[in-house]
Amino acid sequence: MQTIQQPIKFLQQPTSSAWVEQTIAHLDTILLDHSHCERKAAGVALNLICRYPSSAKLVRTLTAIAQEELEHFEQVNQWLDRRGIALAPLAPPPYGAGLKAQVRRNEPDRLLDSLLVSGLIEARSHERLGLLAAHCPEPELARFYRGLMASEARHYGVYWTLATTYFDRTVVNHRLEELANVESELLSTLHPEPRIHS
Amino acid sequence: MQTIQQPIKFLQQPTSSAWVEQTIAHLDTILLDHSHCERKAAGVALNLICRYPSSAKLVRTLTAIAQEELEHFEQVNQWLDRRGIALAPLAPPPYGAGLKAQVRRNEPDRLLDSLLVSGLIEARSHERLGLLAAHCPEPELARFYRGLMASEARHYGVYWTLATTYFDRTVVNHRLEELANVESELLSTLHPEPRIHS
Ligand SMILES: [Fe+2]
Ligand SMILES: [Fe+2]
Ligand SMILES: [Fe+2]
Ligand SMILES: [Fe+2]
Repeated sequence: MQTIQQPIKFLQQPTSSAWVEQTIAHLDTILLDHSHCERKAAGVALNLICRYPSSAKLVRTLTAIAQEELEHFEQVNQWLDRRGIALAPLAPPPYGAGLKAQVRRNEPDRLLDSLLVSGLIEARSHERLGLLAAHCPEPELARFYRGLMASEARHYGVYWTLATTYFDRTVVNHRLEELANVESELLSTLHPEPRIHS
Repeated sequence: MQTIQQPIKFLQQPTSSAWVEQTIAHLDTILLDHSHCERKAAGVALNLICRYPSSAKLVRTLTAIAQEELEHFEQVNQWLDRRGIALAPLAPPPYGAGLKAQVRRNEPDRLLDSLLVSGLIEARSHERLGLLAAHCPEPELARFYRGLMASEARHYGVYWTLATTYFDRTVVNHRLEELANVESELLSTLHPEPRIHS
């Protein structure tokens, strides 16, 4: 299976066709994992709000992001419900922890890295939901992925804009390149369990 | 100043008129604290979703609560913005930590206590936003409090219903009475800093 897609800004390497084959063969597991991804995305936005309570622009924009992610979470959960898939925990792939390990501990580096890591995850989600939209054999589910894909594209733009609000553009670009390399490296070997970020 | 109000279900003791006087004299600080309360309420709901990922009814109802709390958070932040009050951290009163200390560590007690503590906080918020609505000298702000007050009433109903979904009604009532006593006790001495839960 060939995966022909526009390259996504931010991402160093496109997703392999092996990932597409893996996910299309396990749509139910992917939906359950997706539910966790949306919940985590809301949690990450809320944590940033909590950690930087005086940064008005960050607080206000990430409130809107957290609200949207909760809406996505509910929508994915409705899909699970309709398909008779029970809500349940699911072991995450190493991707999230691998990226989190890159976040430097001291401020203001921590803020910059947190924003860029979130931006990269959103960019990758955007790319992969787009692939699901293109390859999913169920038209209604494909349409759902197409809708979400557009939001995730907006989200990575928001994280990028926040980064450039608080940091110099050259500093942002340099660090983004470093993190984007790690991000693509983390996905270079397909994780054996089907996941959005396997 | 006399505070005449209907007693609120769940609460053992009504709020003192001293609290009303304190808050009306510090409306700006109360708005800032309120912003933190709404953010925390969203965080608590999201944490519970995260801790009990297989409990479908809890996940779905608390997703709706988290969404509403984020909406309230944004609305309070708009009020802060309009009044020129900068977003900033604010030391919390001892109330939250005092209640959290009552939550037993082992399941299923932890779930029951978490739901009831959240229910009590919502009930108290409902009562106090009602008092702000009744006593606030600024009509538009009073109207805002009146609107929120209704949501918080619904929220404590939701937490109560969740508790009775997962636990026997007699167990719930017994534990609620114990926790409600602690809750009223924690507020029996007015905290020197003006807060929603001082
Ligand atoms: Fe999303
Ligand atoms: Fe997103
Ligand atoms: Fe609220
Ligand atoms: Fe509430």
